[in-house]
Amino acid sequence: MKVILEPIGKIVDARKYEDLLKVCRKAGINILSECGGIGVCGKCKIIIKDQEFVSKHTGVEKHHFSKEEINEGYRLACQTKVLFTEGILKIIIPKESISEKRKIQSIGFEREIQIEPLIKKIHLILDKPSLFDLRSDSQRIIDSIMKKYNIHNLEINFDILKDIPNLLREYDWNVTAILWNNKIIDIEKGDTSKLMYGLAIDIGTSKIVCQLIDLINGETVNIAFEENPQIPYGEDIMSRITYVITKENGLKELSSLVKESINKLIEKLCLEKNINPNNIYEAVIVGNTAMHHIFLGIQPKYLALAPYVPVISESINISSKKIGLNINKNANIHVLPVIGGFVGADAVADVLATGIYELDEMCLLIDIGTNSEVFIGNKNGILAASCASGPAFEGMQIKYGMKAISGAIEEFSIKNNGEVIYKTIDNLKPIGICGSGAVDIVAELFINGFIDNRGRFIDIKNPRIIKTDKGYAYIIAWKNETAINEDITFSQEDINAIQLAKSAIHTACVLLMKKMNINEEDIDKLFIAGAFGNYLNPINSINIGLIPDIPIERISFVGNTAISGAKICLLSKKMREEASFITKKIKFIELATDPEFPKELANSMYLPYKDLSKYRSVEERLKNRKVTNF
Amino acid sequence: MKVILEPIGKIVDARKYEDLLKVCRKAGINILSECGGIGVCGKCKIIIKDQEFVSKHTGVEKHHFSKEEINEGYRLACQTKVLFTEGILKIIIPKESISEKRKIQSIGFEREIQIEPLIKKIHLILDKPSLFDLRSDSQRIIDSIMKKYNIHNLEINFDILKDIPNLLREYDWNVTAILWNNKIIDIEKGDTSKLMYGLAIDIGTSKIVCQLIDLINGETVNIAFEENPQIPYGEDIMSRITYVITKENGLKELSSLVKESINKLIEKLCLEKNINPNNIYEAVIVGNTAMHHIFLGIQPKYLALAPYVPVISESINISSKKIGLNINKNANIHVLPVIGGFVGADAVADVLATGIYELDEMCLLIDIGTNSEVFIGNKNGILAASCASGPAFEGMQIKYGMKAISGAIEEFSIKNNGEVIYKTIDNLKPIGICGSGAVDIVAELFINGFIDNRGRFIDIKNPRIIKTDKGYAYIIAWKNETAINEDITFSQEDINAIQLAKSAIHTACVLLMKKMNINEEDIDKLFIAGAFGNYLNPINSINIGLIPDIPIERISFVGNTAISGAKICLLSKKMREEASFITKKIKFIELATDPEFPKELANSMYLPYKDLSKYRSVEERLKNRKVTNF
Repeated sequence: MKVILEPIGKIVDARKYEDLLKVCRKAGINILSECGGIGVCGKCKIIIKDQEFVSKHTGVEKHHFSKEEINEGYRLACQTKVLFTEGILKIIIPKESISEKRKIQSIGFEREIQIEPLIKKIHLILDKPSLFDLRSDSQRIIDSIMKKYNIHNLEINFDILKDIPNLLREYDWNVTAILWNNKIIDIEKGDTSKLMYGLAIDIGTSKIVCQLIDLINGETVNIAFEENPQIPYGEDIMSRITYVITKENGLKELSSLVKESINKLIEKLCLEKNINPNNIYEAVIVGNTAMHHIFLGIQPKYLALAPYVPVISESINISSKKIGLNINKNANIHVLPVIGGFVGADAVADVLATGIYELDEMCLLIDIGTNSEVFIGNKNGILAASCASGPAFEGMQIKYGMKAISGAIEEFSIKNNGEVIYKTIDNLKPIGICGSGAVDIVAELFINGFIDNRGRFIDIKNPRIIKTDKGYAYIIAWKNETAINEDITFSQEDINAIQLAKSAIHTACVLLMKKMNINEEDIDKLFIAGAFGNYLNPINSINIGLIPDIPIERISFVGNTAISGAKICLLSKKMREEASFITKKIKFIELATDPEFPKELANSMYLPYKDLSKYRSVEERLKNRKVTNF
Repeated sequence: MKVILEPIGKIVDARKYEDLLKVCRKAGINILSECGGIGVCGKCKIIIKDQEFVSKHTGVEKHHFSKEEINEGYRLACQTKVLFTEGILKIIIPKESISEKRKIQSIGFEREIQIEPLIKKIHLILDKPSLFDLRSDSQRIIDSIMKKYNIHNLEINFDILKDIPNLLREYDWNVTAILWNNKIIDIEKGDTSKLMYGLAIDIGTSKIVCQLIDLINGETVNIAFEENPQIPYGEDIMSRITYVITKENGLKELSSLVKESINKLIEKLCLEKNINPNNIYEAVIVGNTAMHHIFLGIQPKYLALAPYVPVISESINISSKKIGLNINKNANIHVLPVIGGFVGADAVADVLATGIYELDEMCLLIDIGTNSEVFIGNKNGILAASCASGPAFEGMQIKYGMKAISGAIEEFSIKNNGEVIYKTIDNLKPIGICGSGAVDIVAELFINGFIDNRGRFIDIKNPRIIKTDKGYAYIIAWKNETAINEDITFSQEDINAIQLAKSAIHTACVLLMKKMNINEEDIDKLFIAGAFGNYLNPINSINIGLIPDIPIERISFVGNTAISGAKICLLSKKMREEASFITKKIKFIELATDPEFPKELANSMYLPYKDLSKYRSVEERLKNRKVTNF
């Protein structure tokens, strides 16, 4: 039967009575096992929701798992046998059962900023009350801060008033006050002014990235990420919104999932660095508009219905207690503003982090993800568009596609003599192909004349080209080279999936350039952002027409600028003000209503583009085609 | 046996097998009964917690009460017989069983102010979103308000974001926005801009007064009050704080009691005027510091321990939802600032309502209550003191004392021929004596030579003077004149109780005048505030030395200025700012630490004062003593 291995999303064939440890290994997954598969070490844990497709629990499994774990579907892969020949079985491999690490961009380009967080910690040795000094506890704290730092209009958080009288006396009037803006949000015993942390969080459609930041020096202390736990409710935003609309309590359910996931990340970040989560006093959150609404528990229904307007576009400050994040209970959660239904707080962060709104040069900024955002402009104004580029660059919709984890082919080229060279993540035997590998494959097949400018195989005499019932395919790695005991191929369908994805992004670039009344040569800087972007080969990206034909020295890979935008807003009050300012400077362009959209989308399906005069460098490379077809 | 009648606090003797309807009537209480005491009308409801002292429930009672009511101790007075000769039985007479109304000051002197509440209601007909107008729902509302009223920096309450998208569409974009300051706290369907109410609430130690106010014209729409339900936990503040400190959850318990009581008042106020509580968008609350802390759920412990400092002195804004008041869930609760442990938000309201902080004239302001506050000063600065004057003016600690309800002797005088004249509230047969009556009695006994300047009976030959085992007493009303079938007397002990209470207040006045370096003649205005104040005879108040000897044309009775201060803060943003400003202008003087305090307290025990040269008008009246003792 077919076995789907989550969360990497690989599908593998399993024989009847085959055990799942073998099945996983056949798929090239380095599942942990120290006992040789006899159920003693208990390392090869997997989770199976449909237990009717597999053998019953063995005695050793009952020994390893609690009742709750058994109810949750926990099994040992080595003890669990597939019972049928036909059908589909989904198994989840928990992180602790695999050793490999996903290659992901958790940091991005960072501007130089002055560190001036909204959080301040002030150590105070207060005068004790006496008959000659009858000030209230709050007034005593406020006066002391005013005297020391000349901060006026101070307020005290109502929720700490309950505790303040006892704490001040217990701490013998020697305390550290924590300020957010001009509000006293907590007090701590003695001098804790050196312990001051914040979080920058990017809630992506596919993954959640979390940085723990020292607010004193602005350094990133630790980074963690997780798959977005909403994925089972829909890979794309629209399916998730549909779930929210149609399912009672759907909004609460999806919102809670994200919060739980962030709380897990926070726990991990703190545990690893031995930091008390109560010393985290602020979190800045970015995400696309749908993720933003769902996280905040705001109805996202109208993001899915024309004309797709958000409920709120302004930035939001709210207490961690109210949201339910496990940091200091009076910490502030700052959510960056959004621009529109399809251009979210992550896009604001992109623009802020790259600083294109301040530059004289004409800039093109592309943040590639399941949804991609494209910006063109400079200090005189910015146009923005959004496009559903889909998950092909994440390795989905590609037969041997996979996420960028160990064993994924991430680079690919064809030498002059036709020899194929590839590189896998962690240099393991290949299991599949990740996004950057797929771009390389399409580009190399095109430049070397294996496929035409419509993506169709033309040289079918090559030994690597095989015919399948779904058309031609190119063998990227032979069975004997791979970890999955079969050929890894790239099919006609796979090529089309990449074309579709790149044409969406390219169309956005072309239409925005038209609106801005500029051409490729007018673009002084091209920033490629996104978790996936950094691993892209820029020339191959031009070769397939994913990005416009711009001299590569003008291209910068800026990584996860969403998270770096969040980080600089965490560290700088000024940047936070700029973020609000930016939203007013950016004009959202709804591409779907542009009469030229369908034509441009069709033109952009070509490799690199219908009009080759727009891609002189590719034209040149095609002329110097390397490979002699044989 | 002795029967204590709550909440008026009277004690009456009952014979064995006497029914409680008779006992109540003997005590002069107009308990309702329409059937002649045969248990048919069910009007004479009372509550008895100790059922073992009375006869069992009769059949008619089981018919009138539910199981829950029987468990709560509900009985019909006419059906319930006392079973013993000795012992004490406490019965509670619910308000619905009595027709009499307590004479209480629920309004006070009101300054002229410009009506400019922080609440605004703005009717909006919004543009619908379209592909050419992609603004978020919140931005659409904010823009529309900005355009119409030029209000900037608008924010939207996070809690309404959940509902806004659906409501806007359901209401077809025709809504009224409710603003508090520059925050949008709610939206309503269509044009509701004429329905805009607020509450002014005074949480007193003994009673809670609540005014419902129309925020459009500033008029008081309805007034209601209730006994403070904390009374069973201690008549005075200190006992209640002790309860909070010693009893687990005591703070929560007492806090909830007040909130429930306020919620009952709100329900009543709205029901009577057919107003929807959701149209109440703000409440301004005053109260002494202990009531303030307990209401807000803030630890009051240190108000009872030297040096008696409050936890917070600044004003507080908090949502009704958080506090638990049943008005619009996003309404703002504004609590006025406090000055010190013994000078609370009610005192700030007093000063604000009388406006003494703005006057050129030297003012003395006395707010008489269980705790009394005294202020001296003008626009150049104000000194404040607090004194535990005790509940004698509320009719407590006086043998025949009672609260100012129907049947209480409220005025008293002795004619030249020795004839006694008194007036009762509602002109009923007397049941007892309330505060203003007690002041009259002591003054008349003193001026007419029945007692000396130390309060001791000197003329013991008068037929109205009787000797009891606790000393002499004066018969105010003969048994045959009263509703209680016994003489109403005023004893030596009662006189001393009034002396103690008045000396506390007078001492505060004297010491503050000394601190201010002024004399009686320098006082241009004397304001007497408080629920009790308005019924005082000013000359008799001078005669006993409750207030300094000041020409009576300079005296104003200003009533419940605490509630009027709350009201003007509800109606005016400017007044609210003044309130904060006032707290900085008022200097609290701790009398107990003044070395002259004990001597002054002793001097003030005299009638009117030890040094008669300070009371020239009284000296004059004593010279012209009217009554020829016989």
